[in-house]
Amino acid sequence: MKFQIEQAVEILAQTPETVKSLLGNLSDDWVENAESSENWSPFDVVGHLIHGEETDWIPRAEIILAQNENPMFEAFDRFAQFEKSKGKTLNELLEMFAALRAKNMARLQEMNLTEEKLQLKGTHPELGEVTLEQLLATWTVHDLTHIRQIVTILARKYAENVGVWKEYLSILQ
Amino acid sequence: MKFQIEQAVEILAQTPETVKSLLGNLSDDWVENAESSENWSPFDVVGHLIHGEETDWIPRAEIILAQNENPMFEAFDRFAQFEKSKGKTLNELLEMFAALRAKNMARLQEMNLTEEKLQLKGTHPELGEVTLEQLLATWTVHDLTHIRQIVTILARKYAENVGVWKEYLSILQ
Repeated sequence: MKFQIEQAVEILAQTPETVKSLLGNLSDDWVENAESSENWSPFDVVGHLIHGEETDWIPRAEIILAQNENPMFEAFDRFAQFEKSKGKTLNELLEMFAALRAKNMARLQEMNLTEEKLQLKGTHPELGEVTLEQLLATWTVHDLTHIRQIVTILARKYAENVGVWKEYLSILQ
Repeated sequence: MKFQIEQAVEILAQTPETVKSLLGNLSDDWVENAESSENWSPFDVVGHLIHGEETDWIPRAEIILAQNENPMFEAFDRFAQFEKSKGKTLNELLEMFAALRAKNMARLQEMNLTEEKLQLKGTHPELGEVTLEQLLATWTVHDLTHIRQIVTILARKYAENVGVWKEYLSILQ
């Protein structure tokens, strides 16, 4: 599928509503972390999405568009949410994520991205040279990855309750 | 996590909105089936969820609650949607699914399910004896499985567009 910014935005703009639909009405048993601390809870996932809005996607796009001599991204802290989300409720995080994403969609719009701009490059600290188009495609897939993570976490809460059906349900393997 | 019908309903009642949030605003490139016919498109997944509402979950619950001599379920046709959905649009399917699910949530409510009723048993044609509780937990996990399938299908449309980021994105493996 050829990358088109309008189509990436169709997904990106929708993610806060999807995540809120999944998590916004759930009781604590569903969303609290009953697994080991190595496994993220839905709360941790939303905190991670917020940190991405603040420090990853748009800041990296701006580094690429600035076309400075050394367009090196800062490393993304994949565990920052464990500190940053402390003391907040899940619903507060869902609202924060929605507000930040809406602001970032507006910033993306203001960038007036053309085919040429999408091929501009930046430097990822581990992966090396990447284009703006690849960054925006990755942002989109990253959203979908974490929606997938959330539904997997929820499903596994019922891993034993399904009884013999377990063998039919790939999400529980 | 102990099974509680109210908590299963928190997820079940929400699924149509979640699926609509994911798919309702997408252009055709996202939702059409570009993969082989063995792989389902989002359109096929929603058709499958509709067929489940009509022939699987509630009809099986009713077989269990009737407590007839032979509480054997009919086999579920996992491919019925390929015929049944023909000629419909994705948005028509999303509306149908939402209406059927709302009706089935009302029927579930009318069943006044107690702890005792949840332990009543039916016979699955392949898996053998199962309880009503297991059926309802499976319905819930089945929803989450198909949300997971939808986001995986969408993400894979961008499998090449993400460039070197691919190795970081488990959903693309």
